[in-house]
Amino acid sequence: MLPLQGLFQRQHHFQHLLAMAHWDQATMMPDHSAEARADAIAELETLCHQQLTAPQVEEWLNQAAQDSTLDAKQKASLREMQRQWRQAAVLPEQLVKAQSLAGARCEHAWREQRKANDWQGFAANLKEVVALSREEAQIRAAATGSTPYDALMELYEPGMNCARIDSLFGELKTWLPGMIHDVVEKQRSLSIVQPQPPFAPAAQEQLGRAVMALLGFDFHAGRLDISAHPFCGGVPEDVRITTRYSEQDFTQSLMGIVHETGHARYEQNLPGDWLKLPVGAARSMGVHESQSLFFEMQLGRHPAFLARIHPLISEHLGQRPGMDLANLQRLYNQVEPGFIRVDADEVTYPCHVILRYEIERDLMNGALEVEHIPERWDAAMQQYLGLSTAGNYRNGCMQDIHWTDGSFGYFPSYTLGAMIAAQLAASVRTQLGDIGELITQDRLAEVFTWLRQHIWQQGSLLETSELLRQATGEDLSARFFRAHLQARYLD
Amino acid sequence: MLPLQGLFQRQHHFQHLLAMAHWDQATMMPDHSAEARADAIAELETLCHQQLTAPQVEEWLNQAAQDSTLDAKQKASLREMQRQWRQAAVLPEQLVKAQSLAGARCEHAWREQRKANDWQGFAANLKEVVALSREEAQIRAAATGSTPYDALMELYEPGMNCARIDSLFGELKTWLPGMIHDVVEKQRSLSIVQPQPPFAPAAQEQLGRAVMALLGFDFHAGRLDISAHPFCGGVPEDVRITTRYSEQDFTQSLMGIVHETGHARYEQNLPGDWLKLPVGAARSMGVHESQSLFFEMQLGRHPAFLARIHPLISEHLGQRPGMDLANLQRLYNQVEPGFIRVDADEVTYPCHVILRYEIERDLMNGALEVEHIPERWDAAMQQYLGLSTAGNYRNGCMQDIHWTDGSFGYFPSYTLGAMIAAQLAASVRTQLGDIGELITQDRLAEVFTWLRQHIWQQGSLLETSELLRQATGEDLSARFFRAHLQARYLD
Ligand SMILES: [Zn+2]
Ligand SMILES: [Zn+2]
Repeated sequence: MLPLQGLFQRQHHFQHLLAMAHWDQATMMPDHSAEARADAIAELETLCHQQLTAPQVEEWLNQAAQDSTLDAKQKASLREMQRQWRQAAVLPEQLVKAQSLAGARCEHAWREQRKANDWQGFAANLKEVVALSREEAQIRAAATGSTPYDALMELYEPGMNCARIDSLFGELKTWLPGMIHDVVEKQRSLSIVQPQPPFAPAAQEQLGRAVMALLGFDFHAGRLDISAHPFCGGVPEDVRITTRYSEQDFTQSLMGIVHETGHARYEQNLPGDWLKLPVGAARSMGVHESQSLFFEMQLGRHPAFLARIHPLISEHLGQRPGMDLANLQRLYNQVEPGFIRVDADEVTYPCHVILRYEIERDLMNGALEVEHIPERWDAAMQQYLGLSTAGNYRNGCMQDIHWTDGSFGYFPSYTLGAMIAAQLAASVRTQLGDIGELITQDRLAEVFTWLRQHIWQQGSLLETSELLRQATGEDLSARFFRAHLQARYLD
Repeated sequence: MLPLQGLFQRQHHFQHLLAMAHWDQATMMPDHSAEARADAIAELETLCHQQLTAPQVEEWLNQAAQDSTLDAKQKASLREMQRQWRQAAVLPEQLVKAQSLAGARCEHAWREQRKANDWQGFAANLKEVVALSREEAQIRAAATGSTPYDALMELYEPGMNCARIDSLFGELKTWLPGMIHDVVEKQRSLSIVQPQPPFAPAAQEQLGRAVMALLGFDFHAGRLDISAHPFCGGVPEDVRITTRYSEQDFTQSLMGIVHETGHARYEQNLPGDWLKLPVGAARSMGVHESQSLFFEMQLGRHPAFLARIHPLISEHLGQRPGMDLANLQRLYNQVEPGFIRVDADEVTYPCHVILRYEIERDLMNGALEVEHIPERWDAAMQQYLGLSTAGNYRNGCMQDIHWTDGSFGYFPSYTLGAMIAAQLAASVRTQLGDIGELITQDRLAEVFTWLRQHIWQQGSLLETSELLRQATGEDLSARFFRAHLQARYLD
C-alpha cells in the first residue's frame, strides 16, 4: 500500500492547490486573469490525471489486492483507490479532451442562448455534448458491467443504480403530487409578506457569521466570502463557503449560508488520520447534500430554529415590517409550484429532480433524443407540478448548467440527499429527542456529535447503504422523507 | 528549443498556482490551515524542481546551445533558461532540505528571540544557517568560477559582483555620511507634525485605490488586499499587492501602496509574448526595486506629486490638523538617522544596506564569524549614522528576517534599486522634462510609456548593464543618486 499512499497523498496536495485556485477564481480573481488561471489549472489537472493513470499504478493496485494482511480499514482504503483509479483510467485521453472542448463551447453559448430562449441554438451544441457523454457512458459501462446511465451515476453516487432510483423516485411519485396539492390548499389562507428592504450586505454578513458560529462552523479552518453562485469549496483543512447578498431580500442568502454550513461541517469533520487518502473523503454527492439539507431543512427552516435565531436577525437587521417571527416561519416554509429548480421549496423540489432524472437516464440509455427534451419536460411539469413550460425553454429545459458540460447522473443526488437527511433526522429524534426541543434546549451540540460520529468521521470507510444501515438501522427509504413533509407541512 | 519551451511553460503554470497559494496564505488563509497549505506548496515546489532538473533538461540545453539558427531573442531566452536550470540543478537535494529545515527553525525561533533581545539563542541557530549557506555558496561558486558571495548574489542580481558593489557602495560612503549630516542640520528648524488620527481603514483603502488608479495600476489584472507584511505577489497576469492600515497613521500605508504599485506595474507590463518563459520575467531584484523606488521616491514623495494627490487625501480622509500640503511635503521628506532599516528615509537607507552587505559578504567569504556580528554592526552604525546599537540586538543585527532563512546576497538590491531609479529618472528628465512639471501637467502617462518601453517590456532580454546602457546611455553610476538627493534635500 505504501506507493499507493504516496501517490494519493501527492494527489491530495495538488487538489489543495487546485481547490484554492478555483475558489479564488470565483471570489477574488480580476476578470482579465481568467485565461492565465484556466491554463494553470488545466496544467496541474493534467498532471494529476497522468500521475493517477501512470502504468505502475495498476500494478500497485493489483499487488495490494492480493495482499492478505489488509485489515478492514485498509481494504476500504484500497477499494476507494481502485474506484478513483478506474474512473480516471478508463477514458481515452482524446475523448476527455473532446468533452472538455464541447462542454466549454456549449456552456459558454448557453449563457446567452438561455437569455434569448434560443432552444435551436442550444440543442445543436447539446447534441454534441450528449453524443460524447453517451460514448463516455458506454465505455464506463463496459468497464464495470453496468448500464450506461448507472456508470455515470457511479461518478457521483457510488453503489447507486437506476433500479434503486426508479423504485425510490417511483414511490415519491405516488404521493408527492397529491401532497403538494394539499399543502398549497392548506397554505392558501396564510398571509405571508416579504420583509421590508433594503438590507445592508455588511449587516447580512455579520448575521450570517453569527448563525454559522451557532451551527459550529470552525472559522479557524474556513471562511465565508461572496461569489455569483454560492458553493462550498476549498479543502477539508480550509473550507471556503460563499454566498451572495441581495439588498432586497436577506432570507435567501441567510438560508443559503445555513445550507453551505452543512456541507462545510461535513468537510471540516472528516477523519483527520486518513484525510490525504480517498477513504478519508466525503462519501458521495448525495451524502454531502444530506448534510447541507439536514442543516437547511431539518434544522434551519424548523420553526424552533427560526425562533432561536430571531434575536440575531433583529440584532443585525433591525425591526421592520415582515420581520416578526411568525411571518418568517411562514415565509421559510412556504410551498409553491414553480418553474425554477433552484428556487423550489423542499416539497416541490423532488419533482424538478425526478423529471430531470427521467430525461437524462433515457438520453444516456438511448431511449430519448435531444430534440424531444422540451416535450418530455413540458409533459412532466404538467404531470408533477401542474405547470406548462411549452415554448418557455429559458425557464424549462435550459435553466440548469449541469447538462451543458455533460454532468449527466448528478441530479438524483439532490433528492437522495433530502431523503437521507430525513432518515438521519428520524434517528436523531429516536435517540436524542425531538429536534425542535433539542434546538429550544440549546442541545444542538448533541446533534452535531451524532452526525460527526455516524457520518462525518466515517469518510468513505463504508459504502452508502452500509453507512445508512449503521447510522439508522436500515438502508435508504423514502418513508422518512414523506413523514417529515407530512409532519412539517400538513399535521 | 521546443521541449525547453514546453518545460518552462509548465513551470510558469505551476508557479501561477504557487504564487496564488502564497498570496492566499498571507491575506486570506485561516490560521489552522497553515500545515495543510505548507504541505501542498512543498509538494508542487518539489515537483517543479524535479521537472527543471530532470536529466534530459541538460541535454536539451546542450542541444539548443549548439543550434546556430537562434536569433538574438532566442539566444537571450536560452541564456535565461540556462541560468534558471544551473541555479536549480547545482545544489545537492540533501543540502536544500537541510537549509530548509535550519532556516525554518531559525526564523521561527527568531520571532520570539528578537522580542526577548536574545542574541545568544539566535546566534546558535544562525551559525547553522551560515554554515549551510557557506556550503551552498561554495558549490555555486565552483560551478560558475566566482567567489562564494558573488555566487549567492547571482540569485538576485545576475551579472553583479562584489567588485562592482564595493566600488559603487565605496563611492556612496565617501559622501553619504556628510550629506546626512547636512540634511539633518537643514531640516532641524522645520516644524513637522503628525496628522491627527484616527483614520478609518476603509477610507484609507479608498484613497489607496484612487492613487493606484492615478499611477496606472490595472485593476482588471490585479488586486489590493491586506497582509501583516506588505508585498507584491501573484503573477504578471494577476498582480496582488498588499498593505496594512494603521488607524494612527495613514502616511506609511499610502506611500507603501505607491511603492508596491511600482512593483506591480513592472509585472503587469512584462512582455506578453514571452511571458511563460524565463526571458519574459522581470530582470532582477534590483531592477524590480528600481521600479518601486521610482514610484515611491522619484514620483510619490515628490512635492509636486503630493500636491497632485492632496485633493484625494482631503476627499477621503477629511481636513484635520497636520493634513495641509506643506506639512505633508515636509513629513514625506523628513530625514532622520534611526536604528530600523524598514523605517528609514531614502537618504539614510543606503547606510543600513551597506553595513549589512559588508557583514554578509565577509560572513560568506569566511572573513567574519557569527559571534562578531554585533560588534561589526555597532561599529558601522556609529561610523555611518552616528548611532550605537551596543547590546540592543533587537533593533540591531536581529531586526531583519533575511538572514534567518539564509537569504544572503539580497540586501544590495535595495540600494542598487535606488541608484537605478535615480539614473532612470535623470534620463526621463533629459528626454521628457522635469518630473515635477510632468506631474503638474498631468503627463505621468508619458513617464509610464517611457518606463514601459525601456524597462517593463524588456523582460530579461538584456543583462542589467546593457538594459541600463540602452535606457540611459551608460552603465550604473552612483552620481545620479547623489544628484537626486542633493536636489531634493539640499538645494
Ligand atoms: Zn448543497
Ligand atoms: Zn520593494
